[in-house]
Amino acid sequence: MDIAVTGAAGYIGDLLADALLANDSPIKVASLLLVDTIEPRMRSDPRVRTLALNLTAPGAADQIVTSDRQILFHLAAVVSGHAEADFDLGLAVNFDVTRALLEAARKRANKMRFVFVSTVGVFGGDLPPVVLDYTAVTPQTSYGVGKAMSELLVNEYARRGFVDGLAVRLPTVSVRGGTANRAVTSFASGIIREPIRGECAVCPVDEDQRLWLCSPKTVVKNILHAGTISSTQLDPWRVINLPGLTATVGEMMRALREVAGEEVASRVQFVKDEMIARMVASFPPEFDTTRANHLGFIADSNFAEVIRIFIEEEAKKK
Amino acid sequence: MDIAVTGAAGYIGDLLADALLANDSPIKVASLLLVDTIEPRMRSDPRVRTLALNLTAPGAADQIVTSDRQILFHLAAVVSGHAEADFDLGLAVNFDVTRALLEAARKRANKMRFVFVSTVGVFGGDLPPVVLDYTAVTPQTSYGVGKAMSELLVNEYARRGFVDGLAVRLPTVSVRGGTANRAVTSFASGIIREPIRGECAVCPVDEDQRLWLCSPKTVVKNILHAGTISSTQLDPWRVINLPGLTATVGEMMRALREVAGEEVASRVQFVKDEMIARMVASFPPEFDTTRANHLGFIADSNFAEVIRIFIEEEAKKK
Repeated sequence: MDIAVTGAAGYIGDLLADALLANDSPIKVASLLLVDTIEPRMRSDPRVRTLALNLTAPGAADQIVTSDRQILFHLAAVVSGHAEADFDLGLAVNFDVTRALLEAARKRANKMRFVFVSTVGVFGGDLPPVVLDYTAVTPQTSYGVGKAMSELLVNEYARRGFVDGLAVRLPTVSVRGGTANRAVTSFASGIIREPIRGECAVCPVDEDQRLWLCSPKTVVKNILHAGTISSTQLDPWRVINLPGLTATVGEMMRALREVAGEEVASRVQFVKDEMIARMVASFPPEFDTTRANHLGFIADSNFAEVIRIFIEEEAKKK
Repeated sequence: MDIAVTGAAGYIGDLLADALLANDSPIKVASLLLVDTIEPRMRSDPRVRTLALNLTAPGAADQIVTSDRQILFHLAAVVSGHAEADFDLGLAVNFDVTRALLEAARKRANKMRFVFVSTVGVFGGDLPPVVLDYTAVTPQTSYGVGKAMSELLVNEYARRGFVDGLAVRLPTVSVRGGTANRAVTSFASGIIREPIRGECAVCPVDEDQRLWLCSPKTVVKNILHAGTISSTQLDPWRVINLPGLTATVGEMMRALREVAGEEVASRVQFVKDEMIARMVASFPPEFDTTRANHLGFIADSNFAEVIRIFIEEEAKKK
């Protein structure tokens, strides 16, 4: 199949590209276009082509949604902290780019699978203790608003028969490799990753803040799954809350202590940042993902296991 | 106050203009700009100015949201049947125009009250028997999608402090005066209005189809109320399901028979239109509007009373 990934220079996009090119990929890849604002990492694989492209530029969408493209994984985004700081850029990337890609897909003769990577950050405000598949989306961040509007369009373009689209809402991904980003949930990886690497980390939220988490490995498996499942079984609403696990920051720290020891865990310092704490508190920490489970999406077993896998991956890089 | 109304040539927009200019208006009007694609009806009132304007044209929003404007009632819309037939026009008017008006409002030095008139048509798909204030919005019409995306933006522009905005979701308005429009719920007025005027009417849905209804008079009162209430009591979600009453088409017909007699009621013929019936069935017929009631929005007492008022209004015109 002929695949494209936007946001391919990002941490998840890069892992997704690797997973698509792996021998055990559930999708047989004939060609893979990797797109991002900066040139994504090139692979020594003849199927791969990379493209540095400003997705907000006129005509950019048509360079990605060519007539032979069969699946688009649209991951490119301006993350939460960045979208809150730059409202216009946030809306341009998180909404207008999605719309342009959907329009490009609509113009084609044949329907393309369009996997939109959304976020639990669409939720916010007065939420029930456990978010259900049909809990209302009342976002309290600009990031969540751009993603929520995009979800509505993805479902609508699918309903109108313009694309074979669906959207998956990712939990907070932890433990991310790489470096900190401008997501307000960046600390959820930082407080594990940095201490393991021997560095100090600052946690901007309280120990009792609960988070809805998923490991990078599991998230990538779920995004791939979204590329292959029959989306007709999702009608009338092609937006799915992905599985995850709930943990407080305190529980994450205990898991770190258990797996990596007291010395490593002591490298985390708690210095509250009111703005970050407020935005993180607006994201829901617990979900009932009956629908996603039924559709074959998966979750991690426990957070200590997630940390163990992260440590193994880090060791491989050395 | 300096007020503007878009969609002012429409049935509700025209009534709203009258209500704003009336002596008992809850808003003291210093000047009133009435805007629509066709020139709204001129009044012999020095406070009124009318403007025929294509709202999708570049710069149109700036002609409406001038620096002295204090309240904007944004009613202009491409209705359900029309938006389903013309996807691009629907999105352009129901979403892009709202966005342009919000952007124009954001550029001003002082915050403007922005009342966005939305619809229960944002709901659709797998709905609970009674829609609650926090029921998820999963629209199954292009009209609902444009309105739902606009609601997200109105709330966001308010949250960011760009406007003093709120959105009110109107029930199906019945009995509308005037003539049929391209809303798929147009029949909900037609099956009452036309027989009373001595004309025949066709009902495209079954007798047991339930509808969420509100009279024009009550809807206008609620829109005016949205112009004056303190919107800060709405945070974190400035979108309100307005009160209404639930009736089946059969119950509406019985009320017509009761108020206007058998001969009048016999002028309605049932000829099912599958496309209309499907879209109407996707709209929710019953709501719990605790929040709106608490905020001082009102409902009609019963549908027979609504018909009686309609007959009185028709008689006055003669």
